[in-house]
Amino acid sequence: MKKIIIDILGGDNAPHAILDGVVMAAKKDKQLQFLLIGDETQIKERATKEGFVDRVEIIHTTESISNNEPPTNVRVKTNSSIALAVENLRKREDCGAFVSAGSTGAVLAGSVLRVGRIPGVSRPALCPLFPTKTPGKNVIVVDVGANVDCRPEHLFHFAIMGSEYMKSMGIPNPRVALVNVGVEDKKGNELTAGAFQLLKQSDLNFVGNMEARDAFSGDYDVLVCDGFVGNVLLKTAEGAMKLVGARLKGALKSGPISILGALLVKGKLKKMSAELGEEAAGGAIFIGAKKTVVKAHGSSEAHAFANAIHLANRAMQSDMTENIEKAIARNTITEEEKKDGE
Amino acid sequence: MKKIIIDILGGDNAPHAILDGVVMAAKKDKQLQFLLIGDETQIKERATKEGFVDRVEIIHTTESISNNEPPTNVRVKTNSSIALAVENLRKREDCGAFVSAGSTGAVLAGSVLRVGRIPGVSRPALCPLFPTKTPGKNVIVVDVGANVDCRPEHLFHFAIMGSEYMKSMGIPNPRVALVNVGVEDKKGNELTAGAFQLLKQSDLNFVGNMEARDAFSGDYDVLVCDGFVGNVLLKTAEGAMKLVGARLKGALKSGPISILGALLVKGKLKKMSAELGEEAAGGAIFIGAKKTVVKAHGSSEAHAFANAIHLANRAMQSDMTENIEKAIARNTITEEEKKDGE
Repeated sequence: MKKIIIDILGGDNAPHAILDGVVMAAKKDKQLQFLLIGDETQIKERATKEGFVDRVEIIHTTESISNNEPPTNVRVKTNSSIALAVENLRKREDCGAFVSAGSTGAVLAGSVLRVGRIPGVSRPALCPLFPTKTPGKNVIVVDVGANVDCRPEHLFHFAIMGSEYMKSMGIPNPRVALVNVGVEDKKGNELTAGAFQLLKQSDLNFVGNMEARDAFSGDYDVLVCDGFVGNVLLKTAEGAMKLVGARLKGALKSGPISILGALLVKGKLKKMSAELGEEAAGGAIFIGAKKTVVKAHGSSEAHAFANAIHLANRAMQSDMTENIEKAIARNTITEEEKKDGE
Repeated sequence: MKKIIIDILGGDNAPHAILDGVVMAAKKDKQLQFLLIGDETQIKERATKEGFVDRVEIIHTTESISNNEPPTNVRVKTNSSIALAVENLRKREDCGAFVSAGSTGAVLAGSVLRVGRIPGVSRPALCPLFPTKTPGKNVIVVDVGANVDCRPEHLFHFAIMGSEYMKSMGIPNPRVALVNVGVEDKKGNELTAGAFQLLKQSDLNFVGNMEARDAFSGDYDVLVCDGFVGNVLLKTAEGAMKLVGARLKGALKSGPISILGALLVKGKLKKMSAELGEEAAGGAIFIGAKKTVVKAHGSSEAHAFANAIHLANRAMQSDMTENIEKAIARNTITEEEKKDGE
């Protein structure tokens, strides 16, 4: 089994929460092999204590790239954890995936620069899992911010990549929909009109346009949009949940009966919001890079980071990147075919 | 006082909920004067019974435009309630506003075609009120769907119009923000980069870029974006609230203590979600038309429709459209000024 490279220094709660996450993942899945990048003494001590040091290789560094630095620093700070991670991911046959909770920009820039894109993919995309009404059932949105200006063929590639990703997650025939302002075929702007035509001609299970109010309905597996729209979708969902939470708190604080009721349901409410948060923040695949790259949420605690590791492992094991390459090739209309069709 | 034109036949619950809404509004504000368009006998009977028939003029029709028809039918079906409404709004000095819960497309198309735009406004926009964390405090989003392909100057006009609208709602110096993928000045796509520059040079209270997760924080009064992004924002918020509602229901149904707790907080939860729904669905101003046009939610019940009428009245009374014209003129950089600045 190939090694998963972990950036021990990235994230708001690094290195402790990250190391805790690695321990959790290692205990849950005894097959996992790691290349851990961070403080050698600290990592070795912990891995020895937890009894999985035989599955751990370490590259020592104490340098990291913060969220406040330009992402392109990944080129200059060659001894930073992210730079070392992408360099090893590129050159080593025995490494298959990389997980970091550090600077999104640096992880993406480093992956594109050093690891490169899957042949045929025009633009890699950032692709998180979202919760749906049914606990345990997810929907993905491609892209949520890596590409803020897109052309129709980019959205088309997002759809292909998203579909292969969901196959790697165990969904045999993912339902792909285009995020739009209405469900009718003719709805939308220039970008979606162009993407709609490409999607209709593809071998994807394309179910048409959808409206964001149904994003979490469970009726779709893959939602396709440009990175600006996806980013707004991601963050609006977060904001709306915060709004409901704030109002709920206010409502439950007023009157003795409500306070009693609130006490009785408190645990359940807490569990629900933890579940939603967990499902939402588990990690986003940076899809389209030659090897599996997972960006865990910056605020990841151990449990969320462990989930991100399992996610990376699943994508790595299922040959997702190879399948994306094949699907892109299968769906690419050559200039010759275009002429034949005319 | 000028008359408010009401489309009695538009909306999922028309005519009864609409007529009920008119009755509620008429009772709350004894100054209101109406031009009601719908079934004459039905309207007359109701207005007489409720004691405000002296404030009501009626135009009889039984024809309406459904959501399934092309909005441009408003040109052909000249005897439909929406066509009659916009025609009267255009030609009659004594009519100052129009409220409909009918086809959004037909209301917008009809308003642009017959009533026309405020001089200087490049594109009218659809602009709903959203709830924030603080009950009673709203934020508006311009645009949420009237313009799916925009240039920077359109967003600039949206900002000016939104700001004047919030002034008419009693906010003296509205905080205007640009919806973006990050708060830093340089963030975004080509469209937002262009709009940012225009907004920075304006006399608006422009506070910079914002992220959709803070849409309902209460930190902003006017959120500016193209109609595609705004539509996704509007509908994602709706979808996320549905998601929380569904999970909440599931969580509260499990276990006897939770069920007891759920019973004790049920009323509060219902009130909270009604409040959020009410605030969200009260009505959207179609801002930029020469006279005030309010599009109430298609599913409006009486109370929501009455709110939409009060909203229209407030905008009409505060000379919003005149103020928008002045603000646009004030912020328009003439070719001559451009040369002077060079």
